[in-house]
Amino acid sequence: MFQGKIKANFIKTIIDATAILVDEAKFKIADDGIYGRTVDPAHVGMIDFKLKKEAFDDYDCKEETEIGIDLDKLKTALKVATSEEMVELKYEKEEGRLKVSIGNLTRKIALLDVTEMPDTKIPSLELPAEIVISTVEFHQAIKAAESISDHVTLIADKESFELVAEGDTDIVELRLSKEQLYSLKCEERVKSMFPLDYLSDMVKVARGKSEELTINLGNNYPIKLSFEMAGGYIKIMYLLAPRIESE
Amino acid sequence: MFQGKIKANFIKTIIDATAILVDEAKFKIADDGIYGRTVDPAHVGMIDFKLKKEAFDDYDCKEETEIGIDLDKLKTALKVATSEEMVELKYEKEEGRLKVSIGNLTRKIALLDVTEMPDTKIPSLELPAEIVISTVEFHQAIKAAESISDHVTLIADKESFELVAEGDTDIVELRLSKEQLYSLKCEERVKSMFPLDYLSDMVKVARGKSEELTINLGNNYPIKLSFEMAGGYIKIMYLLAPRIESE
Amino acid sequence: MFQGKIKANFIKTIIDATAILVDEAKFKIADDGIYGRTVDPAHVGMIDFKLKKEAFDDYDCKEETEIGIDLDKLKTALKVATSEEMVELKYEKEEGRLKVSIGNLTRKIALLDVTEMPDTKIPSLELPAEIVISTVEFHQAIKAAESISDHVTLIADKESFELVAEGDTDIVELRLSKEQLYSLKCEERVKSMFPLDYLSDMVKVARGKSEELTINLGNNYPIKLSFEMAGGYIKIMYLLAPRIESE
Repeated sequence: MFQGKIKANFIKTIIDATAILVDEAKFKIADDGIYGRTVDPAHVGMIDFKLKKEAFDDYDCKEETEIGIDLDKLKTALKVATSEEMVELKYEKEEGRLKVSIGNLTRKIALLDVTEMPDTKIPSLELPAEIVISTVEFHQAIKAAESISDHVTLIADKESFELVAEGDTDIVELRLSKEQLYSLKCEERVKSMFPLDYLSDMVKVARGKSEELTINLGNNYPIKLSFEMAGGYIKIMYLLAPRIESE
Repeated sequence: MFQGKIKANFIKTIIDATAILVDEAKFKIADDGIYGRTVDPAHVGMIDFKLKKEAFDDYDCKEETEIGIDLDKLKTALKVATSEEMVELKYEKEEGRLKVSIGNLTRKIALLDVTEMPDTKIPSLELPAEIVISTVEFHQAIKAAESISDHVTLIADKESFELVAEGDTDIVELRLSKEQLYSLKCEERVKSMFPLDYLSDMVKVARGKSEELTINLGNNYPIKLSFEMAGGYIKIMYLLAPRIESE
Repeated sequence: MFQGKIKANFIKTIIDATAILVDEAKFKIADDGIYGRTVDPAHVGMIDFKLKKEAFDDYDCKEETEIGIDLDKLKTALKVATSEEMVELKYEKEEGRLKVSIGNLTRKIALLDVTEMPDTKIPSLELPAEIVISTVEFHQAIKAAESISDHVTLIADKESFELVAEGDTDIVELRLSKEQLYSLKCEERVKSMFPLDYLSDMVKVARGKSEELTINLGNNYPIKLSFEMAGGYIKIMYLLAPRIESE
């Protein structure tokens, strides 16, 4: 049995964040919070989130369990709630449904069979550069890049972070010095190229949720994007595979 | 001859309220106000409205008359007005057109032949239950129900009012006790099922116009929905035929 | 070499104003500002704008030059800026690209070859009537006219200005006396008919930019529409050919 009460905005963010990669996902409900880790069907992007029980107003989990969620259904159920409204979630194994209550309105959502849903492991990655950037500024640059190309190159060195996209005739560039970033840790120059469709979706989720976005970057290596909400009790982390530059 | 001046919001509501059922409608202009009663082509929904002359700033009707209106045209004509702007309506039999003036802008709209438009009678119904509910809360539940089904069951008894929709796998429920309603009069349990497309359109019209919505309900019987605006000088009433449950 | 800094809203307006007529345009960058004059492919509408250097925060032009702009690309580049944000424009002949910087984000836009773009001359017109009208009121009437017809007749005389559109069955009219206009100069009655698609686009550009719109009108003759922004340092003028009434 699980029962919890949480701000609509928080649970909506978790669902939206996962839904950019998959239609259905497995969530683990544990005594200290809800966890999810999912990779998209093309194995290009991965999400790993932690929704700690402290992000809830009430949280009660008698027995650790895994539930399979049709994300679109839950999204629709949450749509009637304003972002500050409280949502009550309730799950009883016997019922086999997730009960979502907003005010006096209740929706019982059938759950999916989790036995067919594989566990996802986070690959161990050594990403030498860490950049903490304004989410709004990064998102703006991603949008500009999208208008001329379908991929983008990210570069970091000791002194600066750079985003470059090249179209057939035009170029988009964002160059931020160490002083223009929240923080920059980078010993030697790293450079990787990423598909803009995935990257744009990931950054869009962060936008409006967190002022800062942490980027971990390597050389022709996956990127790690992470941000927090609810005073750190919600942590969302994305991994995105690089595109290999043909030079 | 008829001439009247009214807030755009009021006349827009009347037109929108009728337009969910029909494209063309017959309105009666009398010395104490404008009246309309129309049934949709499938004979599933009916509207009956009263727009009393007190809802107008100016109202002058020399001779009772009936006019046939292309609702879409009138809607378009009213679109340029903000909801608080005044609209002047003028009709002279000889002209055969309705003159709609907003500020210095005038639109003359050709009217339709009313001789072919039948009169509509309100069926006499005994609806034992009367529920007065928050329009916003009812609308929210209707929207949630729409996302999983195309019909909804409404139930009332001495103590509570209930809305239930069942989809293939999911369930939406709204349950309100007497204390959570504006009022509830119901001697014995009644239950009827309704098509959500019509019901949703009707409740959408009421939303934002009136805080309270009055529901009259019977057993496998039509529903009556009614609300007021302009301090009671505008009354809109809908009737909607039930869907028969095959049990 | 040219370099300038300007409010996004100002440069956006210039681009939008030109883009209703053409996809590509030639702009002249001179030491006292930027100038553009373009006719649409059907030779029905013309724009002539002056963007004086005083409308810029910084303006520096070493050598007069002409650049060919893909308007859609520049529009997209400007989209990331809010209307009050500053945009930096930079052009160096050797580079062959226009550099558009918004904050730390830079976009380099390839320019078009201007040698194939003809110069446009303003025809000398004697338009006896001049009307200064509320842009909002004129736009509202144009929108109403569009809902019933694809052309509109404008009439001015000593005492009033009138807009009339006739549909198959309906009529839209706006009649403003001298007192209801900002100003009216008209010795004898003039009347011309114009295509609503062009006229509507032109007035839409002015709306929200300038309270007043100056109309110069003749008899079956082109119309001149003009308005100013930025305290007069931006001037936009349209010419639109009449439709000849077949009477």
